Amino acid sequence: MKHSEPLQMPIEEAMRTQRAIRRLKPDPIDDALILHLIELALKAPSGSNAQNWEFIVVKDPQVKAKLARLNRFAWSIYGGIGRRLAGSDERMHKIMNAVQWQADHFEEIPVIVVACIKAIIPPWPPLAATGTYGSIYPSVQNLLLAARAAGLGAALITLPLWSLFLARRALGLPWRITPCAVIPLGWPKGRYGPTTRRPVAEVVSLDRYGNRAFLASSQPSARS
Amino acid sequence: MKHSEPLQMPIEEAMRTQRAIRRLKPDPIDDALILHLIELALKAPSGSNAQNWEFIVVKDPQVKAKLARLNRFAWSIYGGIGRRLAGSDERMHKIMNAVQWQADHFEEIPVIVVACIKAIIPPWPPLAATGTYGSIYPSVQNLLLAARAAGLGAALITLPLWSLFLARRALGLPWRITPCAVIPLGWPKGRYGPTTRRPVAEVVSLDRYGNRAFLASSQPSARS
Repeated sequence: MKHSEPLQMPIEEAMRTQRAIRRLKPDPIDDALILHLIELALKAPSGSNAQNWEFIVVKDPQVKAKLARLNRFAWSIYGGIGRRLAGSDERMHKIMNAVQWQADHFEEIPVIVVACIKAIIPPWPPLAATGTYGSIYPSVQNLLLAARAAGLGAALITLPLWSLFLARRALGLPWRITPCAVIPLGWPKGRYGPTTRRPVAEVVSLDRYGNRAFLASSQPSARS
Repeated sequence: MKHSEPLQMPIEEAMRTQRAIRRLKPDPIDDALILHLIELALKAPSGSNAQNWEFIVVKDPQVKAKLARLNRFAWSIYGGIGRRLAGSDERMHKIMNAVQWQADHFEEIPVIVVACIKAIIPPWPPLAATGTYGSIYPSVQNLLLAARAAGLGAALITLPLWSLFLARRALGLPWRITPCAVIPLGWPKGRYGPTTRRPVAEVVSLDRYGNRAFLASSQPSARS
């Protein structure tokens, strides 16, 4: 695929086969492709169309190593708790093995994208927080979908950002820019494929919470 | 278009032509189509794959009226400030006219979707906030893209949620569920079309913030 060519995958196929791909090959990714993906990320909406975003494309081994250390530290705590909570849930352990792989091989991932918002997010009021995160995560989702359509492996993680102070220091970010999400990118070792989700009628209410009006009418289909 | 048919629009076309469509016709939308869009929303990633989302599909005029009042109240304050800040910026005034139209005609919008997360979002640490909002906004973006591919008008707004207490009361939400985003849906009066964005090389840094390494190499293209 030429990197300048538009991504042609039908949108529904991209959404249905998007999944976190954590085991990545160390092979490099063309800069033009990375910029193409981020350009599509910028097409997402942002509050008041302010486009207050900043993307850091990390390829330098030294910066990667710093993010890897931050990720490993958070995972050493969070992963331990997670494994205990997972108990005998096979699927959770499979996910955690992939996260472990990612933590162990973080330095070998060819490109780490850090999505940031040019704002300090106040803890209050909640409207400010949802408005601010709502101005960066739609673009992150565009990036993930575009990566999927391009055949690149990607995942959305936040553990390397457990300390905003240390994350800002690793990336040379001023205090008024907040890193929000980390997206490791690389050619996948594994494969994309359909995901399983709760049936839509179980998470949709009509008019008021708890009114599961669509439970009866919804037919099981190949889609769900 | 049959509502059970997969959405076929190429992903890049959907992303490049997605924009907030606020002027909507009052014509009804088929329930099956709404569920189809939300089903695709559920395909987005969520933290630890917890899928802690809840979607309220509001069609009842009484509930709509409550959200309309909340929206109008916030807009009466925010819009006044906005108009003063916009000065003579034509584009901002065009956006604000559309938001004003939306506020004036809120009750006529056929469907209002409220995306919620089954969590109380703690003001601290930031990792909890970004992880939680990062578990709902990717699905909101899927919903917006799917709406665009289906030819439905949509926008992402948060003003009706300025008071979580009143928003929860309007929607019958328990306190442990947080409404995060509101998406008015309807058949568009206007048209979708390409959006303008800042050039990608201006918002991307290599390795450390401020290193605009791609500024020189990036060629102006039809894409940007």
